[in-house]
Amino acid sequence: MENSTHYFGAGPAALPPAVKQQIKADVVSYKDSRLSILELSHRSEQFVQILMSAKKLLRELYSIPAHYKIIFMHGGATAQFDAIPLNLMGASRRMTYVNTGFWSVRAADFAKKYGQVQMVEGLSRKNGNLCCVAPRLWEIDAGSAYVHITPNETIDGIELKEITDFQMPLVADVTSCLLMRPFDINQFGLLYAGAQKTLGIAGLAVVIVREDLLERAADQTPHLYRYDVHVRENSLVNTAPVFACYVTELMLEWVNAHGGVKQMHKEAQVRAQCLYETINKNSALINQVCAENRSSMNVVFDFVQNEHLQKFLSDASEQGLHGLQGHRLVGGVRASMYNGTPMKAVEKLNALMQRIT
Amino acid sequence: MENSTHYFGAGPAALPPAVKQQIKADVVSYKDSRLSILELSHRSEQFVQILMSAKKLLRELYSIPAHYKIIFMHGGATAQFDAIPLNLMGASRRMTYVNTGFWSVRAADFAKKYGQVQMVEGLSRKNGNLCCVAPRLWEIDAGSAYVHITPNETIDGIELKEITDFQMPLVADVTSCLLMRPFDINQFGLLYAGAQKTLGIAGLAVVIVREDLLERAADQTPHLYRYDVHVRENSLVNTAPVFACYVTELMLEWVNAHGGVKQMHKEAQVRAQCLYETINKNSALINQVCAENRSSMNVVFDFVQNEHLQKFLSDASEQGLHGLQGHRLVGGVRASMYNGTPMKAVEKLNALMQRIT
Repeated sequence: MENSTHYFGAGPAALPPAVKQQIKADVVSYKDSRLSILELSHRSEQFVQILMSAKKLLRELYSIPAHYKIIFMHGGATAQFDAIPLNLMGASRRMTYVNTGFWSVRAADFAKKYGQVQMVEGLSRKNGNLCCVAPRLWEIDAGSAYVHITPNETIDGIELKEITDFQMPLVADVTSCLLMRPFDINQFGLLYAGAQKTLGIAGLAVVIVREDLLERAADQTPHLYRYDVHVRENSLVNTAPVFACYVTELMLEWVNAHGGVKQMHKEAQVRAQCLYETINKNSALINQVCAENRSSMNVVFDFVQNEHLQKFLSDASEQGLHGLQGHRLVGGVRASMYNGTPMKAVEKLNALMQRIT
Repeated sequence: MENSTHYFGAGPAALPPAVKQQIKADVVSYKDSRLSILELSHRSEQFVQILMSAKKLLRELYSIPAHYKIIFMHGGATAQFDAIPLNLMGASRRMTYVNTGFWSVRAADFAKKYGQVQMVEGLSRKNGNLCCVAPRLWEIDAGSAYVHITPNETIDGIELKEITDFQMPLVADVTSCLLMRPFDINQFGLLYAGAQKTLGIAGLAVVIVREDLLERAADQTPHLYRYDVHVRENSLVNTAPVFACYVTELMLEWVNAHGGVKQMHKEAQVRAQCLYETINKNSALINQVCAENRSSMNVVFDFVQNEHLQKFLSDASEQGLHGLQGHRLVGGVRASMYNGTPMKAVEKLNALMQRIT
């Protein structure tokens, strides 16, 4: 029996086989308790341990300083698109968002309900290719409460690789790159990530926030969206998404056991480079992102001959390679390769890409 | 090897063994796809099927009329404590909440950020016992946009068994009783339930809302809290909590296959009656809720002699009966018995209660 189904979905994404095996066992009996992980109370000693362990691992993996708090919240990154302005805009109600593509624009659109949003262009064209640049300081409204960036845009497969310092707090949506590239946490006021790409399953967001930013929440912030409440209640404001938190803890353990963020970053670059080299060499394939901004997580490409797409996807599927359809807004192919993606899956996909003429 | 561990936690709660076995299989390969249910995309055909099936089952189980919409949202019932006023208060910003205990007061406290909350007393004492009464129409602010009730209070174990009609929309938190007692949906404007008691696992709420109430959302309602957006986008506003939705679908299938809501209600009454009879007969045990308001889901009791509590809990634990500690606000014992609780677990607990002198 063929034993190599591989999933390239953009999120919910592939989990490492070892993590799935652990979950399978714990669904029946968690740590010999003979109670399922699915039945574990959010107030139990075991769950408090899971949360503590997850926070400790994340803190170690990114050397997060003590004056940054880590919180676990319901709802994914989209909930943060509202939570961020509500918690951080303060009395000025002015905010700056850097446009690097779909997700940054969506984040800005949500913020517009609450105040005045300045949109700074982060995209440009170089020889017809899409590039992504950090804004210059003079472009930013000096009265903004924060500057929001999206270091990796999953739909276009475009990555902002250099993080610039600003005077105001920098807020970053790292949903598709947390645990996959190093960050100097000190450069940021807040980082947030939906869990379903690199941190497990959907329904959870992890937020890393500098503690001096906790005092600004608007009065009408919904209770579950308040960072200060989550910090005070240790992420147990209501029944936490126990299972999703547990899967995140397993993912953090897995990354830690496999060499940490630097190693994950190296492997991500090797995977992506393998496919980008084929794209460079094979004139039947198109990618319109300039070399320095090609995403290491989401490799997006299309075919010179339109009719190749369906055949490519069906050949891939026959070979056990799934989740490759591009986002509905751009079409083509998207190979999302997070930490759970083994090199052999990439090699199989690469061989298929080389066959296109 | 002893094979009877039973869980009486108030939520996250026990799941039926058949449901856990199904999950165990699907964590490795969902429906022979060789992809894990944990990796399933929220945009996949399979997930759309899961959502459709869940809605269809719930609609059938409660004969929900076509002009009520069913939505699945992140965050549990606590998120609804904010979403309800934001979506329903309208221009009047006046709302009425019936006080039946902790959860109703908490729901009202959240609403106070947004407008004027009238709190109507729903508790009274009869011969020293706690009773729960529906408010009379004349007690309610005629300008209220809605009346909020909590038919079952899990901490005190008190249940409002008769639902009264009002002129304004009735909103009910049915987190601890959906799928466990019949409701005439036509009596309500909106019903909502966090999933982790009777509908699966934490991180999800199910909302049943009359469609004429969808046009009132306040401008500053966070996007994921808007009922109209969820209806329009078929509960796929962002990455849905895929796994939690899937578990809810399994729970609905299970209830459907085991006789539906009437049968669940009958079994819940049999389970609760068994324990309440022992409490009535055994003068060493105390329950201070009057007979007509004793909860069929959460049987709460204490001991005349304080020192019995720790021994009781440790004896129970030795016999494989877990999750019996009362809520931290009231202490004592709480046996939460949702649809996943087998009668043999209740009998074992009952035998232990009979031994107290």
